[in-house]
Amino acid sequence: MVGFDADDTLWRSEDFFEEAQDRYEDIVGRYIDLSDSTAREQLYGIETANLKVFGYGVKSMTLSMIEAAVLLTEGRIDGADVHRIVQIGKDMLVHPVELLDGVTEAVEEVARRFPVVLITKGDLIHQESKVRASGLSSTFSRIEIVSEKDPQTYTRVLRELEVEPGQFVMVGNSVRSDITPVLTLGGWGVHIPYHLTWQHEVQAEPPSDGDLPRMRTLASMRELPETLTALTDSSPA
Amino acid sequence: MVGFDADDTLWRSEDFFEEAQDRYEDIVGRYIDLSDSTAREQLYGIETANLKVFGYGVKSMTLSMIEAAVLLTEGRIDGADVHRIVQIGKDMLVHPVELLDGVTEAVEEVARRFPVVLITKGDLIHQESKVRASGLSSTFSRIEIVSEKDPQTYTRVLRELEVEPGQFVMVGNSVRSDITPVLTLGGWGVHIPYHLTWQHEVQAEPPSDGDLPRMRTLASMRELPETLTALTDSSPA
Repeated sequence: MVGFDADDTLWRSEDFFEEAQDRYEDIVGRYIDLSDSTAREQLYGIETANLKVFGYGVKSMTLSMIEAAVLLTEGRIDGADVHRIVQIGKDMLVHPVELLDGVTEAVEEVARRFPVVLITKGDLIHQESKVRASGLSSTFSRIEIVSEKDPQTYTRVLRELEVEPGQFVMVGNSVRSDITPVLTLGGWGVHIPYHLTWQHEVQAEPPSDGDLPRMRTLASMRELPETLTALTDSSPA
Repeated sequence: MVGFDADDTLWRSEDFFEEAQDRYEDIVGRYIDLSDSTAREQLYGIETANLKVFGYGVKSMTLSMIEAAVLLTEGRIDGADVHRIVQIGKDMLVHPVELLDGVTEAVEEVARRFPVVLITKGDLIHQESKVRASGLSSTFSRIEIVSEKDPQTYTRVLRELEVEPGQFVMVGNSVRSDITPVLTLGGWGVHIPYHLTWQHEVQAEPPSDGDLPRMRTLASMRELPETLTALTDSSPA
């Protein structure tokens, strides 16, 4: 079985988060000097603290931006600008899906040979609407939207899918969320880096040396079908 | 198989949404006269429109409250009050779980006789943390957090659970979300009304007359084990 991550693996996502961040800084930058690194650190700190309560996704980001805007401006942010920040979140939630190069062909080719599932985190409603808009929803036998991608979550999902870790390959752009936890369980990982990485995903536990033989790194999704063929040939099962 | 709804079926939820609404009205009521029914209608209208983009749950509610506060006060709401509204959302997300009367005993008794699953909508991270805090997570063989409870969603979930609708009973407080869609598919419904119903759940499609023989209404979760025994005896399978 092959599992696919969604954001920045199948379609663009981090680009839109960065655009949102730029719009946010334009708004808050009219009140305070954001070139001051303390202000940026404070925003990052508020986001990090809020992830535990709000979880991942656009709504969480929007609420953190609003809270940080109030704190950074010491309450001076006006209602119209608060509304502009809410609108940043709405715009992201309805933004058209932009599939990455070669994704449709690669996923469909893989799906002809293996059961394929989508495993992603983020806002439930946002991820579901992106899957629908991608045209790929019928290709995936199962779509799992989870709150955290750690070994416990993968253990539960693989148990529900009735697949052994050694028979499972996860494909994704995040070493922290898509690769290391699956390798830890004895599964396989195909890392396809994206040109942007969310700051909260950067601090990754690297795979341990013993797990590296079960990891591949590709430059593009186009290389995936061939890589899976090679993995299947080399796998003991 | 028996499916349970979560909010206002296993634990209190709408009470906290009403408390949140009261706190919100205290804040906004300092700027405008909320006894004016137009103001309340405007808030309800903004919430309804935003449900399509933001989905269900506390984060969605909080963002709608912020947006409505800006619009209702014509931008006069100050930063400290915006922050208070963010805090309403945070407080709800970390509020201790309060199980309803008799729930633990009833669910555990049912789980000894049938596979039991939890099917709920709302914020992924919030529902997961409530399930953990409830002490019931190991009782449920599966926890499905969905973005909408309509016949399509139940069809998908029952297919994934490999159970026929005629062998499935859904237990919940909402006719709209828990009972009618399951009856429509040929399943069974046990309605346990809660003393409060969220305004957005009130406009329910009532079950059709032909489906009523597969519906029961109980005053309390305590009556559930006995009711399921009677249903099993009367069911053709």
